Amino acid sequence: MSRSLLVISAHAADFVWRAGGAIATFVAAGGVARVVALSYGERGESGELWKEPGQTEERVKQIRHREASEAAALLGARFECLDLGDYPLEVDKAALERLTAIIVETAPDLILTHAQQDPFNPDHPVAYAATERARQLASGSGVASAFRTVRPPELLLFEPHQPELCGFVPNVFLDITPVWEKKQQAMAVFASQSYLRQYYSERAAHRANHARRIAGYKDIERAEAFQRVLPQVVRSL
Amino acid sequence: MSRSLLVISAHAADFVWRAGGAIATFVAAGGVARVVALSYGERGESGELWKEPGQTEERVKQIRHREASEAAALLGARFECLDLGDYPLEVDKAALERLTAIIVETAPDLILTHAQQDPFNPDHPVAYAATERARQLASGSGVASAFRTVRPPELLLFEPHQPELCGFVPNVFLDITPVWEKKQQAMAVFASQSYLRQYYSERAAHRANHARRIAGYKDIERAEAFQRVLPQVVRSL
Amino acid sequence: MSRSLLVISAHAADFVWRAGGAIATFVAAGGVARVVALSYGERGESGELWKEPGQTEERVKQIRHREASEAAALLGARFECLDLGDYPLEVDKAALERLTAIIVETAPDLILTHAQQDPFNPDHPVAYAATERARQLASGSGVASAFRTVRPPELLLFEPHQPELCGFVPNVFLDITPVWEKKQQAMAVFASQSYLRQYYSERAAHRANHARRIAGYKDIERAEAFQRVLPQVVRSL
Amino acid sequence: MSRSLLVISAHAADFVWRAGGAIATFVAAGGVARVVALSYGERGESGELWKEPGQTEERVKQIRHREASEAAALLGARFECLDLGDYPLEVDKAALERLTAIIVETAPDLILTHAQQDPFNPDHPVAYAATERARQLASGSGVASAFRTVRPPELLLFEPHQPELCGFVPNVFLDITPVWEKKQQAMAVFASQSYLRQYYSERAAHRANHARRIAGYKDIERAEAFQRVLPQVVRSL
Amino acid sequence: MSRSLLVISAHAADFVWRAGGAIATFVAAGGVARVVALSYGERGESGELWKEPGQTEERVKQIRHREASEAAALLGARFECLDLGDYPLEVDKAALERLTAIIVETAPDLILTHAQQDPFNPDHPVAYAATERARQLASGSGVASAFRTVRPPELLLFEPHQPELCGFVPNVFLDITPVWEKKQQAMAVFASQSYLRQYYSERAAHRANHARRIAGYKDIERAEAFQRVLPQVVRSL
Amino acid sequence: MSRSLLVISAHAADFVWRAGGAIATFVAAGGVARVVALSYGERGESGELWKEPGQTEERVKQIRHREASEAAALLGARFECLDLGDYPLEVDKAALERLTAIIVETAPDLILTHAQQDPFNPDHPVAYAATERARQLASGSGVASAFRTVRPPELLLFEPHQPELCGFVPNVFLDITPVWEKKQQAMAVFASQSYLRQYYSERAAHRANHARRIAGYKDIERAEAFQRVLPQVVRSL
Repeated sequence: MSRSLLVISAHAADFVWRAGGAIATFVAAGGVARVVALSYGERGESGELWKEPGQTEERVKQIRHREASEAAALLGARFECLDLGDYPLEVDKAALERLTAIIVETAPDLILTHAQQDPFNPDHPVAYAATERARQLASGSGVASAFRTVRPPELLLFEPHQPELCGFVPNVFLDITPVWEKKQQAMAVFASQSYLRQYYSERAAHRANHARRIAGYKDIERAEAFQRVLPQVVRSL
Repeated sequence: MSRSLLVISAHAADFVWRAGGAIATFVAAGGVARVVALSYGERGESGELWKEPGQTEERVKQIRHREASEAAALLGARFECLDLGDYPLEVDKAALERLTAIIVETAPDLILTHAQQDPFNPDHPVAYAATERARQLASGSGVASAFRTVRPPELLLFEPHQPELCGFVPNVFLDITPVWEKKQQAMAVFASQSYLRQYYSERAAHRANHARRIAGYKDIERAEAFQRVLPQVVRSL
Repeated sequence: MSRSLLVISAHAADFVWRAGGAIATFVAAGGVARVVALSYGERGESGELWKEPGQTEERVKQIRHREASEAAALLGARFECLDLGDYPLEVDKAALERLTAIIVETAPDLILTHAQQDPFNPDHPVAYAATERARQLASGSGVASAFRTVRPPELLLFEPHQPELCGFVPNVFLDITPVWEKKQQAMAVFASQSYLRQYYSERAAHRANHARRIAGYKDIERAEAFQRVLPQVVRSL
Repeated sequence: MSRSLLVISAHAADFVWRAGGAIATFVAAGGVARVVALSYGERGESGELWKEPGQTEERVKQIRHREASEAAALLGARFECLDLGDYPLEVDKAALERLTAIIVETAPDLILTHAQQDPFNPDHPVAYAATERARQLASGSGVASAFRTVRPPELLLFEPHQPELCGFVPNVFLDITPVWEKKQQAMAVFASQSYLRQYYSERAAHRANHARRIAGYKDIERAEAFQRVLPQVVRSL
Repeated sequence: MSRSLLVISAHAADFVWRAGGAIATFVAAGGVARVVALSYGERGESGELWKEPGQTEERVKQIRHREASEAAALLGARFECLDLGDYPLEVDKAALERLTAIIVETAPDLILTHAQQDPFNPDHPVAYAATERARQLASGSGVASAFRTVRPPELLLFEPHQPELCGFVPNVFLDITPVWEKKQQAMAVFASQSYLRQYYSERAAHRANHARRIAGYKDIERAEAFQRVLPQVVRSL
Repeated sequence: MSRSLLVISAHAADFVWRAGGAIATFVAAGGVARVVALSYGERGESGELWKEPGQTEERVKQIRHREASEAAALLGARFECLDLGDYPLEVDKAALERLTAIIVETAPDLILTHAQQDPFNPDHPVAYAATERARQLASGSGVASAFRTVRPPELLLFEPHQPELCGFVPNVFLDITPVWEKKQQAMAVFASQSYLRQYYSERAAHRANHARRIAGYKDIERAEAFQRVLPQVVRSL
């Protein structure tokens, strides 16, 4: 049976910059990937789109939906958005239940989401907290429960824009060299944000440099960094 | 080529209680395991032996050497001791160079040693610090060097006796169910310490309980806990 | 005047496994103990009961109430439940006011509750946060106030199931050897959870082993671990 | 153009004890200072006023408003209060929006508020969290946004009453010697709290002693301590 | 049998400012107190004495010895100095053995020493590290050993001059009101350091204010703060 | 009088990659900069040079000395090396005294050095510890002393190669746009390490991106990140 990956993203485009390589790698290995954005980032991260005269929120969301779906498709994933609003993103009880239901329905082996803190983004920590809570509710903490639960998934956090200020300490470096072209194509979808394309391309090269130094694998040219927050349970070291 | 494991232990018996399952698992998977004790623990951890009238330090060391070698053999590993003395253990420049040379010569894929702190054991943090420094000197930090180096090994810490007081946070649980009998036999070698045998048997069951809750693998009956301190570099999540 | 203990528990049975010995010791010394459960744990921690065909939530709560009351009585405490629901437990403004009123009414010398974090239990941190907030509101921070307040109680956290993953660092070990039989009887009430009885019996022996090593009191055979989170104010060291 | 300071205070008098010197210094240097209290502290910090027979909440608030306005005026600042209630202070969505609007309207260079934790004050952490969130919403995280934003202000925390218990680590000591008399006058407004006047006078001398030791400036006689929580961006070291 | 207190101080006068009240309280309760200074602080903390023309190191040490002995006597303790030199203080192997022997010989119930860090004092952390190591060697970690050991003593750290910068978080406040006069007399011995007398008098009042707020004991007028670093083992909560 | 900067570097080239912009900025503002390398990095960081047949340690040091001096000159600083050896770097008592004497002689306003930890470089933490200790000995902790001391300098840490793994949290971003060309020239001196030139050029652009987001200064194109570890003492906020 194929392995299952669930990416929970505060805004529509986050998953591309931060986990595009991980998604493509997962899919290339036969896995199934699903991206759930909590909002379109229509207010806080669509400044370029709002420069167009007569722009409307509805249209911004449509554009973001189209772009994110296309980028997800290039990476091999399915995209959907809960459209909860951004700046501020708020996850109320009903939204938490939807998220929990998504985890139960998907039964992912692995969940990727944002880091716990971010002093320069009010929505990312909200996404983290909602994901963390939904994960626990969906898995019933490994204890027999009165409700339907899934096997507890792994949880990894993706790299925030200013890692040290977010308390992010990477403990997993993923080699994305084989899927690098796919990630570039997905990033290229967001035409108006070319500077982020360059930033995250260089970042992938830096993380590869780190990975080479840590482990000595000389063939890694691009990498993504993650922070695993739950213990691994393994059969061998 | 077989994978290589190096266990660095402050005293002669530490590796059995804390990593006996990991060693046996590693060897069962075709790997080669080498245990290096920095001391025999002849002063601080051989109280039972000193109850015998006319006991001498030399004889205590011989007994400890025989027991540790036997336990290591049962687990499938080779045992040696640098005999640096204990309570206090001190690792001077020459000893650090020997340890570095051992790492270069062994070229381990994985090193296991003690946690960084221990308010109730003066030697364990010394073993950690020496291992950590030797590891860096042996691997040249992944940078081209003037001296012979090895590919940077992984580093995991084994569970101390009072984990929370040692700043130990396990992030790897190893299923040792298949090799549990071997670990029991190795523990049985230390005849005079039957209470530790019971303690670590129960501990293995508790860590298995934790592992089952974390990951949902219902077949885990015995486990050992470790703390990985360096990032993993992986090809897939 | 007798001293007063208030135990605030997320679910109906938590107080037995984690603080049964502390309650019995407190009562044996002439104190009065009151247990307030925020929920019955009817969804997340009553899986065994739900295996019975035709089971209903109301009946599960009744069984849990009876069991918890009986266990509390065996320990010498009075049990009540706010019945706020579990998985997820939520403490709204009215519930917070009830909890605050309970603290003011009880005027406890000591409050026991859950640890601040728990990656495998969504309700325990909620219980902590509510207790911590109610404690502050009830005691007015030691400043003259417009409302009735009590002398600030001590606050200790009880041991979570996976201590290191919950940021739990024990700084108080309580000798429960004299009341061990009582705790065993209280645990035996929860007939369907015999594995927890064994787990927490062994844990009590381990914590006793730790306590003996820390302080050298050789007569301690069973202990419970706690984390004190507020400073102690003492008349002598 | 003059620099702008915004002080966000949980209760009406906090800003005087904790940041009176900073406000006076800022104004003395040509800046403009605005103090926003979230509540009057009418319940939790007006105990003295409630000793008067027949006292009413409305009257307490009026007295607190008059005192705080007078103290602010002595320091050169303008005072206002959102009157959200205290013990417990709660900042709902509408209040958060008001606070965000105040930041956008003020466009401060610098915001001062409470520390993140306080085990002996339930309202101070609420003030911190609301300020931190409003600051992010108001500044749009330095990213182009669909809504009006301001240049990201600096954020400093002022000294809590029990610094170590609040996780407060001062990294900025401000010399308030030149404005010390003004701070004394402002503190004197709160006639009924003479013990706090003495406490914070001595504290200012202690912080000056620290500052002299840290930097060797022998002329500092009174100082206030702050914790900067965001990076500084500078043109020279 | 009387309880025994051992105070280990980096320089000759530290114990008076930081633990004078604790010593006098301990002695007043029938205990025996011994102060061991590692150095006289002849270089780094005797600046006033060196202002005298023709001053010599030998004479500075004599004056410091006389003053410290007198202050200790006023508090009821015996004073001695290992005279290891200061700025920098270094504790070599022989000195560590002397310190270990002192702990074995004294068999203290309680040890008081400096905090682990101090960015403005190079000797205090050295005193901490030596004390911590000697404590472990002297008590054999609660395990049967080949050498003579003592029951593991408690360990508390006294308040450094700039607590927050030293990572000091007080978790024990000791009421020293009953012995305050004695501490004042002991402080008065150090005639040339009148500003420290004032500083630590005010500090004692502040810590009393904190203690009153924490625990509501209204009769505490002077207090000293300590940080307990090892778990307490208790018979009741 | 001009301000004075002292940079203490574990190996000969570290100061260029990590603080080249800071040095040039400091000098451009009229300050005087002095770089002290503790070693030439002849073993651990000169791998390229050792590829030349018949290479000798002496010659490697000469080349490193020439390159580092040239790079320092381009930045406006004076370079010297204590030649203590690397991999491992060790700072004994005599070396610590030399370093202390250099600080006293230089009386710097500001010291820059490495971060406290580095799991992939055994020498950087040694440089930190030696610098930190020498700084304290040279400044006498702001207390009157028997020996010549200097006004306590500021201390900032420069960015390590893998910041998060070294516990590095930047709290100062320096705009180096005006001196960027100078830093590029200095980096170009190290001809054989062109990949580091690219790495640190991109890193400077990323840190500028961060700085723009943090503070909104849109003209910053290149920046260096630092961690200030001691409090600032200021006259205005």
